[in-house]
Amino acid sequence: MTIFEKIISDEIPSYKIAEDDNYIAFLDAFPLKKGHTLVVPKEPVDYIFDLDDTSLSGLHIFSKKVAKAIEASIPCKRIGTAVIGLEVPHTHIHLIPINEVGDINFSNPKLKIEANRMIEIAQGIASAFSSL
Amino acid sequence: MTIFEKIISDEIPSYKIAEDDNYIAFLDAFPLKKGHTLVVPKEPVDYIFDLDDTSLSGLHIFSKKVAKAIEASIPCKRIGTAVIGLEVPHTHIHLIPINEVGDINFSNPKLKIEANRMIEIAQGIASAFSSL
Repeated sequence: MTIFEKIISDEIPSYKIAEDDNYIAFLDAFPLKKGHTLVVPKEPVDYIFDLDDTSLSGLHIFSKKVAKAIEASIPCKRIGTAVIGLEVPHTHIHLIPINEVGDINFSNPKLKIEANRMIEIAQGIASAFSSL
Repeated sequence: MTIFEKIISDEIPSYKIAEDDNYIAFLDAFPLKKGHTLVVPKEPVDYIFDLDDTSLSGLHIFSKKVAKAIEASIPCKRIGTAVIGLEVPHTHIHLIPINEVGDINFSNPKLKIEANRMIEIAQGIASAFSSL
């Protein structure tokens, strides 16, 4: 069982932003930028391109709404995305507020943001999500 | 008119892999890895999250098929994706054959691959695409 399944089942806590029956979004615990979010299908499929067309479409439509909520809450030029998938074997889309090309670089040092601040960031995005 | 619109209209050549009425895929002329491909909607929308749900879904379903064709043609662990969009103002998904996390890093030097070899790479992926 991956860490994402434990987050989905609430076995371990996360800075949750939104969820529905099929998808969940929460802050990346090791953010490249403030507001860096992961969007995950609840279905435990390792590789995004093994999702069937319906799940893949739903994941991206859900991600669009999450991206709009991040934009509404975190100042940035736009939301960049990345799917790598070599670490946790459960599909996840990175949504990252960016201002320049170099902002999406997983070799960059991860930000250290205090738990209280992470909660505030998640609540801000969650609240924007609810208003969309 | 962006360079992608000129590629779509065949005004300038590209290492084309596949196209249908709504989407087109061609090799990135400045590849991070061999087989690095761009998937573009023909509709000239700058920001991916401004695509309507139908176009967004179609783009990702088309990309999945292109990713499977790249995998069939280029040895790699999987296909990673990135959407940045701060340079050409026309939605495009990067599909990049990866073996490690650091393979998706737009600060890495771009590969110099000769035109003849690019044509062969595009033909290999195009042929895999047709067989899917």
